Amino acid sequence: MLVGPGDDAAVLRDGWVLSTDLSVEDVHFRRAWLEEREIGYRAAVAGLSDLAAMGAAPVGLLLSIAAPRGGGVDIEAVAAGARAAAEEHGAAVIGGDISRSPGPLVLDVVALGCTAWPVQRDGAEPGDHVWVTGSLGAAAAAVQAWQQGEVPAPELRAAFAAPRARTEEARCLVEREIVDAMIDLSDGLAGDAGHLAAASGVAITLETGCVPVADAAVEALGVEAALDAALHGGEDYELCFVTDPDVVDVAYFQERFGLRVTRVGTVSAGEGVWLERPDGSRERVERGGFDHWAGEAGG
Amino acid sequence: MLVGPGDDAAVLRDGWVLSTDLSVEDVHFRRAWLEEREIGYRAAVAGLSDLAAMGAAPVGLLLSIAAPRGGGVDIEAVAAGARAAAEEHGAAVIGGDISRSPGPLVLDVVALGCTAWPVQRDGAEPGDHVWVTGSLGAAAAAVQAWQQGEVPAPELRAAFAAPRARTEEARCLVEREIVDAMIDLSDGLAGDAGHLAAASGVAITLETGCVPVADAAVEALGVEAALDAALHGGEDYELCFVTDPDVVDVAYFQERFGLRVTRVGTVSAGEGVWLERPDGSRERVERGGFDHWAGEAGG
Repeated sequence: MLVGPGDDAAVLRDGWVLSTDLSVEDVHFRRAWLEEREIGYRAAVAGLSDLAAMGAAPVGLLLSIAAPRGGGVDIEAVAAGARAAAEEHGAAVIGGDISRSPGPLVLDVVALGCTAWPVQRDGAEPGDHVWVTGSLGAAAAAVQAWQQGEVPAPELRAAFAAPRARTEEARCLVEREIVDAMIDLSDGLAGDAGHLAAASGVAITLETGCVPVADAAVEALGVEAALDAALHGGEDYELCFVTDPDVVDVAYFQERFGLRVTRVGTVSAGEGVWLERPDGSRERVERGGFDHWAGEAGG
Repeated sequence: MLVGPGDDAAVLRDGWVLSTDLSVEDVHFRRAWLEEREIGYRAAVAGLSDLAAMGAAPVGLLLSIAAPRGGGVDIEAVAAGARAAAEEHGAAVIGGDISRSPGPLVLDVVALGCTAWPVQRDGAEPGDHVWVTGSLGAAAAAVQAWQQGEVPAPELRAAFAAPRARTEEARCLVEREIVDAMIDLSDGLAGDAGHLAAASGVAITLETGCVPVADAAVEALGVEAALDAALHGGEDYELCFVTDPDVVDVAYFQERFGLRVTRVGTVSAGEGVWLERPDGSRERVERGGFDHWAGEAGG
């Protein structure tokens, strides 16, 4: 082992990278929200996204499923979803475990990848720029709709049910040797920027006017609440990365991947994550980590 | 990947071996039976035992914990138990994930090891002998005591709460190049011999008079029920392995490891697992796989 607990994945000898991710019913999803295949698919993507955050190419997944006794869960459909996600990202399901559960459906996805240049969270330096891929807040907006008993718009639902890990995008960035630190967005931009800042011993200022909020989230929630979903919602599975100034070719990225990449902030000496509003006001993000809870209110 | 789902662990390039194991409250254990530290310890040993079954040296564990919301579980104690097991077997905890659970305490342990000579389940050939390490049935006897509202004898409790993976023993056997196939005993000798037989395309006959039933299990259950616990109980975490005849140095093994190794049967052409009683009668084992269920009756 070269890198221990605390990063997106453990880095081993020979360039292997290894992560493990729980996906728990009524915490990370509800069965009423998703098809079984989608439950497996998005659990697998969460693991694949950890590999992307390290700049690693996916090799294999191990899938553990604890399924409620008395049936009601099509385990094969869950596994098929995970296999589909693995294959779409260039990997395969290479093992796993199956158990009964006296309660919720629980998945654990182990993601194994490899890279010659693992990117970690601790390389951000004062003066660096902070970037994100894609647009944010749609998955959190879908969860808000479901929690209010509504049906999310198709684009919001797709963001939650069928995310895509930014595997190729991450590999491209890493091969250009321009990334000082990287993380995938599972806890919301503010929370995950906080992980980067803490690991690197720096402060990160996010310019809220620059955050690429998903149009569909704005439509569903309004501008302010959609920004809040982007900053504090979770499970976008986009990349947040840090580079020297002026090294990211935004147009190339857009053309090659059909995906926007947006500068959202700056690294400085200090600590914590700060929000800078368009009116110039600054506030420190005081919130704790994103609290996955798809259960009933009061969780 | 060289070996896919179906063996104790997946075998990767460069000699890496990888397994994942669920440990679910009220399926694999009850919280009333164990200290939290023991829950983490034995979950980790289950993963380490998978590595031993492949002849692999442990390198690292990843530990995922889904803990019931509302507290009540000392997550740090669970993790400390897993760390202790890892360290006692020459490995370290190198990552993991933590989530809340709306129901049971769920652990998933990923075990990573390496070996130049991975031993699989499919190498048994007619004429081979079948061996087990240690003595069997004590963990199952402990579960029976708990399920009847009794306190298991200390030796039985220890077998369930603090098993040991046969890491060194397996490495010794593999380095001598005498093992054709190997598995660890998590589902009972009959069930796990069935896995070896199925993977190798052979029949295995177990001589019931030779099965090393734990003395403490016999004391607690009587001879017949203790034999049944050894054959059909679970979670002994001993090794079951297959060799050419007359190549195992029982005395050396006993002296080096302080552990008995016992010939329990023979491989022949055919299929399935057969029990041969001391009176010469034979019956095929028809039972399905071991059914982990530590919950209330009727699970």
